[in-house]
Amino acid sequence: MDNNIKIAVEKIAEEAKVASRELGTLSTQIKDKALAAIAQALIDNTAEILAANEVDMENARKNGTSESLLDRLMVDESRVRAIAGSVLDIMALADPVGEIVKGWKNPNGLLINQVRVPLGVIGVIYEARPNVTVDATALALKSGNAIVLRGGSLAQETNQTMTKIVRDAATKTGIPENAIKALPRADRDSANALIGIDKYIDLLVPRGGEQLIKNVTENAKVPVLWAGAGNCHIYVHSDADFDDAENITINAKVQRPSVCNAAETLLVHRELEESLLPRLVASLREKGVTVYGCSSTQKLPGVEAASEDDWSTEYLDLKIAVKVVDSLSEAISHINRYSTLHSEAIITKDYDAAKTFCEQIDSAAVYVNASTRFTDGGEFMMGAEIGISTQKLHARGPMGLTSLTSTKYVIQGSGHIRP
Amino acid sequence: MDNNIKIAVEKIAEEAKVASRELGTLSTQIKDKALAAIAQALIDNTAEILAANEVDMENARKNGTSESLLDRLMVDESRVRAIAGSVLDIMALADPVGEIVKGWKNPNGLLINQVRVPLGVIGVIYEARPNVTVDATALALKSGNAIVLRGGSLAQETNQTMTKIVRDAATKTGIPENAIKALPRADRDSANALIGIDKYIDLLVPRGGEQLIKNVTENAKVPVLWAGAGNCHIYVHSDADFDDAENITINAKVQRPSVCNAAETLLVHRELEESLLPRLVASLREKGVTVYGCSSTQKLPGVEAASEDDWSTEYLDLKIAVKVVDSLSEAISHINRYSTLHSEAIITKDYDAAKTFCEQIDSAAVYVNASTRFTDGGEFMMGAEIGISTQKLHARGPMGLTSLTSTKYVIQGSGHIRP
Repeated sequence: MDNNIKIAVEKIAEEAKVASRELGTLSTQIKDKALAAIAQALIDNTAEILAANEVDMENARKNGTSESLLDRLMVDESRVRAIAGSVLDIMALADPVGEIVKGWKNPNGLLINQVRVPLGVIGVIYEARPNVTVDATALALKSGNAIVLRGGSLAQETNQTMTKIVRDAATKTGIPENAIKALPRADRDSANALIGIDKYIDLLVPRGGEQLIKNVTENAKVPVLWAGAGNCHIYVHSDADFDDAENITINAKVQRPSVCNAAETLLVHRELEESLLPRLVASLREKGVTVYGCSSTQKLPGVEAASEDDWSTEYLDLKIAVKVVDSLSEAISHINRYSTLHSEAIITKDYDAAKTFCEQIDSAAVYVNASTRFTDGGEFMMGAEIGISTQKLHARGPMGLTSLTSTKYVIQGSGHIRP
Repeated sequence: MDNNIKIAVEKIAEEAKVASRELGTLSTQIKDKALAAIAQALIDNTAEILAANEVDMENARKNGTSESLLDRLMVDESRVRAIAGSVLDIMALADPVGEIVKGWKNPNGLLINQVRVPLGVIGVIYEARPNVTVDATALALKSGNAIVLRGGSLAQETNQTMTKIVRDAATKTGIPENAIKALPRADRDSANALIGIDKYIDLLVPRGGEQLIKNVTENAKVPVLWAGAGNCHIYVHSDADFDDAENITINAKVQRPSVCNAAETLLVHRELEESLLPRLVASLREKGVTVYGCSSTQKLPGVEAASEDDWSTEYLDLKIAVKVVDSLSEAISHINRYSTLHSEAIITKDYDAAKTFCEQIDSAAVYVNASTRFTDGGEFMMGAEIGISTQKLHARGPMGLTSLTSTKYVIQGSGHIRP
């Protein structure tokens, strides 16, 4: 790696760290005023943003960028309004900083409070979507954290322009200037420099595709908060209500197949092989879903053979793997083996089956008679979401603002010494 | 690395993972019964433990092991009683598993509960002290986690014997056999195999010296919970009570200098240079403490010159670095720069100074007029402690049983689909 970029990125991170100490003690009022100013500044400078975006779009088109990527890159007036709106949504959330998580008085009279505090500096590496520049900055500010942004090269002009607008508005309202930093380059070296820093960066949030994730997994020295993949399951128990089973399966698979909380595998109890399974498969196929089935499911018309790989595939597409299982416990074993521990649902009317499923399934979200699609910060009443964690440490499931915080203990004594 | 050990360790971890699913759903009653049986079995089999320990001690003596290491390795009757006693202490703690951390009903009627659950499998790599074998196992069992132990080679016989006793007692009372596993070898390769597993192990707790920490930092693929170093500070503000300042400084430095919450640096306000500083330094020296001072402190008798390194040294010994600072803000800057973010104290009668110090010091525990020595699971009313974390994610400060847990969301619906 180019050593200059390493030094430059470390300097940026150090400056952000220094700024974070001041930012971390600012009142909610000041932070909210800054967020309101940011939203207004984005609206006021829409023309400048669109002009910068036009440069990025032209370069991208010249380089033969795909239509779907161009769509993610594109910013128009309504998208600027949406971005500004999401800043106001984040402003409206409760400030997690300063919350007394726990507090008590020791027998010896020591008063101990566990207080919620910002982490310090959040690093974000992201790809084409320029809205992440503003979203991530607003989430960091609201939770009292400085931010270091490394956007994708495709969106370089748009990101630079938006960062400048956001930083100017924030600085004018009392946010320290170095609290919002962008890396000077949008290349791989600058990302590698950022994830390789062993101080200053308190948390890295990677937002991007497989290559980014692989790179971060293998090389990061900074602590990382993952938004994990979702190989989500629906298990239809022998006594399930047929309408519930069909509605929930269709909703979980079809309503928005490209997201992590969409279902990827359907497990159906053997007793329903002749009664309900044909109806479920037909209904899925009618909605345009390709069905990869186990040997039992393959007997139905239009079902393709599932391979071992299908059980662990996150299709993110109108595709589903279907398997007939002999028992609840086979369903649970299958899920705990193949799942990415995101979201799983059982459809049943049986109290014990529901209880056992909820206890034994080792996933971030476990549902009874509801669609896996509800695993979401908004649906979980957290407001804006940083992502959905499938890791078990620090934050699990939808991650709200508190996942960008830590706690510290404040202990008040009066000359206390330890006996 | 020897590939056989890699395969063997992965198999052990996988078996522990399977067992953890059953263990995680056991009631507190069953887990407590197992812990009581373990404590009794240790007492009942004291002779066997002492015999095994004698073999380890003899081998260690032959290899010229230092007296202090021999003392850590040694187990006698009273130590077995103490180990069994700590199992009963852990038994008496509240079971963290099953706690409803949060629960609410969504406007759409979905009932959402965030439930505390075990992590799954805890790996522990430790060195000479055989009591860790039992302590770590008891903490894991109480929190519903399976455990994979890799003890030090010095204590191999003792660890094997104790593991067998503990496992037999646990299995007889309904704990799955594979919930308590020990690696077949106590060498570096087996430790490397354990930290290199990218599945099955949900958390690694390293307990040992610098070399272990370095190895884990550089090579671990598993999530790690660190018990961090403590470069702790006492800052004596200009208006401090002289007796409080002296008592707390002496307590924090002298009472048990070898532990992470002992003070390593004393900062004194410039206004006290002539009045209090000489008294503090004399008092420290009287207790046998070597004082490394800044240029101002060096004017006092018997003070050695502090180098830049002294400000970041965790002596863990009767040594202290002393610096005169011009202001509260210089003290705060110094601490935030050199501290390992463990525990820091201010001695003051001034309300604003205390408030500012608590807000701006970025450490796990911040004290007003009390000794840093209180940063401890027991003193924080958590009971047994896994260690004291100086990291910001997952757990910060003294880590009790809950740091060995995660949460999951259980969502109860009645046919809910996402609109």
